[in-house]
Amino acid sequence: MTAHTAEKTPPPDEELALLKETLQRRLEQLLPAGSQRDLVSAAMREGTLTPGKRIRPLLLILTARDLGCDAHHPGLLDLACAVEMIHAASLMLDDIPCMDNAMLRRGRPTIHRQFGEHVAILAAVALLSNAFGVVASVEGLSSESRNQAVSELSAAVGLQGLVQGQFLDLQEGNLPRGEDDIVATNELKTSMLFGATLQLAAIAADAAPMVRQRLRCFAQDLGQAFQLLDDLADGHDNTGKDAGKDLGKSTLVATLGAEAVRQRLRDHLHSAEDHFTHACGQQGSTRRFMHAWFERQLADFQ
Amino acid sequence: MTAHTAEKTPPPDEELALLKETLQRRLEQLLPAGSQRDLVSAAMREGTLTPGKRIRPLLLILTARDLGCDAHHPGLLDLACAVEMIHAASLMLDDIPCMDNAMLRRGRPTIHRQFGEHVAILAAVALLSNAFGVVASVEGLSSESRNQAVSELSAAVGLQGLVQGQFLDLQEGNLPRGEDDIVATNELKTSMLFGATLQLAAIAADAAPMVRQRLRCFAQDLGQAFQLLDDLADGHDNTGKDAGKDLGKSTLVATLGAEAVRQRLRDHLHSAEDHFTHACGQQGSTRRFMHAWFERQLADFQ
Repeated sequence: MTAHTAEKTPPPDEELALLKETLQRRLEQLLPAGSQRDLVSAAMREGTLTPGKRIRPLLLILTARDLGCDAHHPGLLDLACAVEMIHAASLMLDDIPCMDNAMLRRGRPTIHRQFGEHVAILAAVALLSNAFGVVASVEGLSSESRNQAVSELSAAVGLQGLVQGQFLDLQEGNLPRGEDDIVATNELKTSMLFGATLQLAAIAADAAPMVRQRLRCFAQDLGQAFQLLDDLADGHDNTGKDAGKDLGKSTLVATLGAEAVRQRLRDHLHSAEDHFTHACGQQGSTRRFMHAWFERQLADFQ
Repeated sequence: MTAHTAEKTPPPDEELALLKETLQRRLEQLLPAGSQRDLVSAAMREGTLTPGKRIRPLLLILTARDLGCDAHHPGLLDLACAVEMIHAASLMLDDIPCMDNAMLRRGRPTIHRQFGEHVAILAAVALLSNAFGVVASVEGLSSESRNQAVSELSAAVGLQGLVQGQFLDLQEGNLPRGEDDIVATNELKTSMLFGATLQLAAIAADAAPMVRQRLRCFAQDLGQAFQLLDDLADGHDNTGKDAGKDLGKSTLVATLGAEAVRQRLRDHLHSAEDHFTHACGQQGSTRRFMHAWFERQLADFQ
């Protein structure tokens, strides 16, 4: 991979907005065209294209660049879209009646409420499967790298990742849980897919094993910080999701209180920053993006 | 790939029984260990390991051998297991209440009845994801071949395969449908995964593009024949599944009558045999296996 080409960079906020637009256009291309008759396609599009934070794909692209990957690498955007499809699929499944039975997501009725439960499940399966197909045929990566990327995503979705996180959250979330159990579930629910996201960035940038190891640690801290933020946000009504879903749930906010959780979140962010510096040196895009993002969210959920 | 090594071959029935045992052992190894607490693992194991016909993995191994692939090819068994995992996942999802709401599968209560609907869905997602991971790291194939195998499976599961077949079956199965619509849905429901199964065999055997094309035609006929057999079987109580689920459904048996369907099934088998001969020559394992299997089933459902 060639080093980041020197070119006039727009200001950070503007660059992020442009990146999100580019992601949106590519997601639209990678998803099947919707039609009235084909509800599954329509649900796949609605579940993925409704504007969201796009944290994972942005993180993938920014980190790959910070690792020296060419901004015009032809596969970077598709890897980012694949991760977003997996994330969208996991949200659609988490929301269905036999799981979290959620009404709202990204400010709109959840997919099963719009299209029916069977369509939501089938669309999620198609998105997952599509994501693996996109990665297996992504341009600009060696075949071996594509296999590695498929393996990373497979591990992040499966029994040591999203699936087990969701199961434990449903099974044990309403029982008294110790801190360790909550942290372990949060890792499965959030850190694992962040981990795979960053490994895909490292694969695209052809990063060394030591860098990849540091990025795993970065992902762990980042995932914990995100989950804590999500817990702090519950009860606020500007999240686009059902408010107060965590009432009666054994979260760290319920166990330790909001102030302690806010402190713990900052500790994770410091630790994440430390790991990131070891992985990527002083490159600033990812760091700046994460910092601004958390500060904004924390200000909202004071 | 080296040619099939000459060694003493056991009689066909005995060889098949041995192959099924080998498949079972390998599936057990590839699945997570079950535990009382970990219901998702237990559901993955129950959904996959409960004895079934194992048509797809047997077909993959026999066809690969007929194409000249070494019987001891280190990746063949894992490719076959990956296909069986995908099949098992699709059955688990088809059976849940918002889909077919089935009570029995392989003679036992369906997975959601044993473990709960959320566990059935999560276990199916984990199986699918596991299958892609197995294929991406299978031994004895080039990286490029592994990518191709992932792409084949992705296409067979997604919106042009199992997902769309199940959706159309749910959406339109109880409405009056023309023959063409029924055939198109059957292709998505059954032929597509047969197609991917045979492409994986061809990839393992390093077969020529013309052979691969013929195998796609073979899969189409075989899938139609299977679906017709499945329709003929409905109403009989020795299938291990709920009897009479197709009552009121617009199947070809309802449209054309059982005798015409039996004849059409034989036509598909003849056509399949023709395609197979063009693909694999006079090699006999796959042909013998399919022939014996269909004859036995047809005799049962007279």
